[in-house]
Amino acid sequence: MCQTAVIRDDFCHTSSFCVQIIIKFKQMSKLPFEPAMGDEVILLNFWLSPYGMRVRIALEEKSIKYENREEDLSNKSALLLQMNPVHKKIPVLIHNGKPICESLIAVEYIDEVWNDQSPLLPSDPHQRSQARFWADYVDTKIYETAIRFWRTEGREKEAAREEFLECIELLEEQLGNEPYFGGKNFGFVDVALVPLFCYFNTFSLYAKFIHEAQYPKIVAWAKRCTQKESVSKCFPKEQDVKQNFPQK
Amino acid sequence: MCQTAVIRDDFCHTSSFCVQIIIKFKQMSKLPFEPAMGDEVILLNFWLSPYGMRVRIALEEKSIKYENREEDLSNKSALLLQMNPVHKKIPVLIHNGKPICESLIAVEYIDEVWNDQSPLLPSDPHQRSQARFWADYVDTKIYETAIRFWRTEGREKEAAREEFLECIELLEEQLGNEPYFGGKNFGFVDVALVPLFCYFNTFSLYAKFIHEAQYPKIVAWAKRCTQKESVSKCFPKEQDVKQNFPQK
Repeated sequence: MCQTAVIRDDFCHTSSFCVQIIIKFKQMSKLPFEPAMGDEVILLNFWLSPYGMRVRIALEEKSIKYENREEDLSNKSALLLQMNPVHKKIPVLIHNGKPICESLIAVEYIDEVWNDQSPLLPSDPHQRSQARFWADYVDTKIYETAIRFWRTEGREKEAAREEFLECIELLEEQLGNEPYFGGKNFGFVDVALVPLFCYFNTFSLYAKFIHEAQYPKIVAWAKRCTQKESVSKCFPKEQDVKQNFPQK
Repeated sequence: MCQTAVIRDDFCHTSSFCVQIIIKFKQMSKLPFEPAMGDEVILLNFWLSPYGMRVRIALEEKSIKYENREEDLSNKSALLLQMNPVHKKIPVLIHNGKPICESLIAVEYIDEVWNDQSPLLPSDPHQRSQARFWADYVDTKIYETAIRFWRTEGREKEAAREEFLECIELLEEQLGNEPYFGGKNFGFVDVALVPLFCYFNTFSLYAKFIHEAQYPKIVAWAKRCTQKESVSKCFPKEQDVKQNFPQK
């Protein structure tokens, strides 16, 4: 994915040397990456989806130009049905006409293709496996209990709330004294988790759920993340959300 | 993870050249990979687990020597609780003392660390994303419906059976005329899916579920996979299974 630098082959002794120069060149450049001719990035999305938000945050982190296309979920486009015939769901990332479905798979794809800026996954295989483990935990455990809380009432809701808080306690411990789950830098697990906290923010749910005194590290982490432009610009607007959803 | 070949640096002009030589050397060699000094691979497992089977098949595919440690699931070992404190589940791969939990994450880790023999995931990022998509489909959709079929009775069981067959139809289409989901070679999706078919085999469930005439490609694929030594040696023995489980 050489997009910004053109270096003549005869200046390079080996291709790996070339790659190093291109990476260095890109690191030095402050300009956002411009897609090369024909490098088209489209995101089929729905503005409220936390899964779509993950893909947007990853694209923003990498300064990739893309077109965000809003889907009407009650009348899905022919393109969405063609690009994700199995699940027929957003988000779908379309890169040069080729679809990538499932948000975490799309985030990982973005990290692999645009691997020369803001790496999201560590390069060490064991650390990478740990990032995948926690992202999977966020996906299957945290989102699942949050959705259960959202959709249920009474005892079931209370059980989901308790279970959710146990998960947050575990994450508080996992985060430790690092600024991000990715360590010093915002990474894969941060991308996976932060959209949920956007909701907390938007729906003013912090008070119901997460007390700063009880979970100081997670609350500080969430504030730190939401101060990042790559994250905050992907938030749904509070007013739009409140118009569409009654307070729960 | 250079384990078999030692090549002096001064024979090589560049490190990538070195890597090519080492890969070629290993491809030529018929010997299984020997773990380097201190390269210890342990699998905490339970003989009936299809998830554990995935990890074993990946290790066998790569000819990695490992120790398979059976867990008593009613009295889990201190090592299992220490290595997987979050889920407290098998399988756990322990590589030089470091744990990797969740079967597909472990398979991907194995593929990344021992990347010079029998690659399971394609090197192209888009093809890799597609393999991850289908492995996720197998994990979340196919296994889920199969477990639902196994655990329920009556109408619920019948609904699970129908849903499962719809999934198989989709996989039949996805496989197309390739020998494996990995294309010409046995790959990540094959590793994810094949343990389920071991069960079909062992429990003689083919007749209840999958008629050869209806799904000729999948049935041929399953036979092709089970003829591989890396797969067949990871099957639980039919007699052992029947002693432990009544026919459903």
